Amino acid sequence: MNEQKWRIPANEGVGLRLERGQILRVTDVEGEQVADLVAFLADDRSERLDPGVTMDVLHAMKVKVGDMLYSNKYRPILTIIADKVGQHDFINSACRPEMYEFSYDKPKHASCYDNLNQALAPYGIPAPDQHYSFNLFMNTVIDPSGQISVERPLSKAGDYIELRAELDLIIAISACPCSESACNGFICTPIEAEIV
Amino acid sequence: MNEQKWRIPANEGVGLRLERGQILRVTDVEGEQVADLVAFLADDRSERLDPGVTMDVLHAMKVKVGDMLYSNKYRPILTIIADKVGQHDFINSACRPEMYEFSYDKPKHASCYDNLNQALAPYGIPAPDQHYSFNLFMNTVIDPSGQISVERPLSKAGDYIELRAELDLIIAISACPCSESACNGFICTPIEAEIV
Repeated sequence: MNEQKWRIPANEGVGLRLERGQILRVTDVEGEQVADLVAFLADDRSERLDPGVTMDVLHAMKVKVGDMLYSNKYRPILTIIADKVGQHDFINSACRPEMYEFSYDKPKHASCYDNLNQALAPYGIPAPDQHYSFNLFMNTVIDPSGQISVERPLSKAGDYIELRAELDLIIAISACPCSESACNGFICTPIEAEIV
Repeated sequence: MNEQKWRIPANEGVGLRLERGQILRVTDVEGEQVADLVAFLADDRSERLDPGVTMDVLHAMKVKVGDMLYSNKYRPILTIIADKVGQHDFINSACRPEMYEFSYDKPKHASCYDNLNQALAPYGIPAPDQHYSFNLFMNTVIDPSGQISVERPLSKAGDYIELRAELDLIIAISACPCSESACNGFICTPIEAEIV
């Protein structure tokens, strides 16, 4: 029997296959924890979830229940079925070692980029030059002047989002390992993923 | 002698090499015309201009004179030397055939994605699964609720931006071929590029 539930330890990642029609619930176990999510078509790894295209189609930086998330080739690949938080991020790429070196002088820091690459490798998906992830629970605030700040997530312990696959997908999720900023409330905690 | 000035016809693209220290001026010849720009390191094509990283470093969706633009690996690769417009776009990926099919039922439409790929091919840079371009003169407006609209560019005839290379770069520019929306003021016109 295939595994249906994954506990992702703080600072780590996981990969899984989500068949068309299946619903994935991603839960912020302790609260204020971001989960970077990427999704590739199981039968064509050149097509993947694209937050930029999703914003273009929805004409919005926020998603709501019923919205679809789109691939780089403008196909709907996931639908939001439930969302206890309503605040996620589409504009930040996955944190990566060079970010920790640049911003915090910590070049060997764990990162979503490395977590996602490691989670995708068993599925034969090579590391891209960047992951443009859908950053669950990430609370990016843009003020009217265009200044961007990353604030504490609005998610409380047990809050979740549910996504239904519209095509067969390979998904990877990283429990963001950034404890240096408000991104994860200054402490990194686990994420739970479950096919419900 | 290497070419130093390029007239990019409406709906087309161009590729060029910009050496470290050289300044590239990109001019909106007739006004209200977007130019999608991408840049790759000449000696490492896995490193390239990344609008998402640039927003992360600058904590801003807008750039001003003196700001640097960053690569996916958090290195400054271009500096803004002059800017007559002050309104550009970091969040839209390059338009592509699938966008025109999805939004306008025109699957064979010219696109920035194809223009950029064609311009980069002579430099041995393969087509990525998506171009995350710096969209010069593109006027993307985000309202406080997070709704996104693409308005007419603020650029007038002859307005330009100047970018200095901080490393040796391969650059491609596309005169955006979208006449279906306000993005280019509903008419596509030429762009000029010049090493000054």
